[in-house]
Amino acid sequence: MYEGVVQDLIDELGRLPGVGPKGAQRIAFHLLQADPVDVRRLADVLLEVKAKVKFCSTCFNVAEDDQCRICRDPRRDATVLCVVEEYKDVVAIERTREFRGRYHVLGGAISPIDGIGPEQLHIRELLARLGQGDGAEVSEVILATDPNLEGEATATYLTRMLSPLGLRITRLASGLPVGGDLEYADEVTLGRAFVGRQAAT
Amino acid sequence: MYEGVVQDLIDELGRLPGVGPKGAQRIAFHLLQADPVDVRRLADVLLEVKAKVKFCSTCFNVAEDDQCRICRDPRRDATVLCVVEEYKDVVAIERTREFRGRYHVLGGAISPIDGIGPEQLHIRELLARLGQGDGAEVSEVILATDPNLEGEATATYLTRMLSPLGLRITRLASGLPVGGDLEYADEVTLGRAFVGRQAAT
Repeated sequence: MYEGVVQDLIDELGRLPGVGPKGAQRIAFHLLQADPVDVRRLADVLLEVKAKVKFCSTCFNVAEDDQCRICRDPRRDATVLCVVEEYKDVVAIERTREFRGRYHVLGGAISPIDGIGPEQLHIRELLARLGQGDGAEVSEVILATDPNLEGEATATYLTRMLSPLGLRITRLASGLPVGGDLEYADEVTLGRAFVGRQAAT
Repeated sequence: MYEGVVQDLIDELGRLPGVGPKGAQRIAFHLLQADPVDVRRLADVLLEVKAKVKFCSTCFNVAEDDQCRICRDPRRDATVLCVVEEYKDVVAIERTREFRGRYHVLGGAISPIDGIGPEQLHIRELLARLGQGDGAEVSEVILATDPNLEGEATATYLTRMLSPLGLRITRLASGLPVGGDLEYADEVTLGRAFVGRQAAT
């Protein structure tokens, strides 16, 4: 329907997650009328992100150098290691400002249905890291995988793999979301909140 | 929060229409993990669209050459001219396959609140076009501006400007949307449907 290159642009935009056909059209029309300088800046940053962004050789977090900002920071506590599925989980945890340790990014969760087993994740590297150099100082590993089926399976697997090392292994607390209504919590969450109840202070 | 260039990408994506901060993050994370070839294709098509896409010198439709596909097509009826606000309106009308004439794209609608007067639209070019060459054959001008305040104002203005030319000037029919429920139609639409009622066949 559209002139060739406009259709190409709509097709490419429509492949992005969360952008439907209508959204892709809307963005394409916006770009058609946008200042060429703005469009070039978007194109440049797309290329730059693929050229510049690497993954930290220690923790597999996003990095612009060989090591990420967090692994390079000597003020971060090297005795606590937080294991997460993805880079975005690192960002979410950093935003809480509650954690001052280091990370290990698995690159996903165990999911047989998607053909992802432990070998596809950075679990071998986690074990190697805990045995040498920096990682030998680690006294606690926090398993901060997603509270869903795949995340739980991954945490269970990691618990089994790590327990021979004699470290403290912990999971994030499950319970009621802050600001939520008790009556709207699902049964599993509410059940977990009971199991994990703590002394009122 | 994010490594520099990742944040730049999120910022740029967040400027696109219909992409909120969460959507921008989601797209950025997707692109971080995407095949570099795919990302380069998106960047290339962005640059290409700005380099290649021009506006038709006759009707101001999107074109890859001096004239758009429709103006170049000798099978299109040169006696009927459909005036629309934007390129996307051309596409919407083409999709109906009901119109075989030519177009004139105004580039917007009269909107004093946005500082858009008749001078900012391709109205002067429309008048010039109707007086010479190709345009001299035109016997009917269909005013297909949007059925909203700005579109109506633009159509009213154009009717006044074009009536001295002695052409047939028409508007698209207003009425109930096909497939809709009568009870859900707003009063104005329902009122227009009464005013515009036709003999049952």
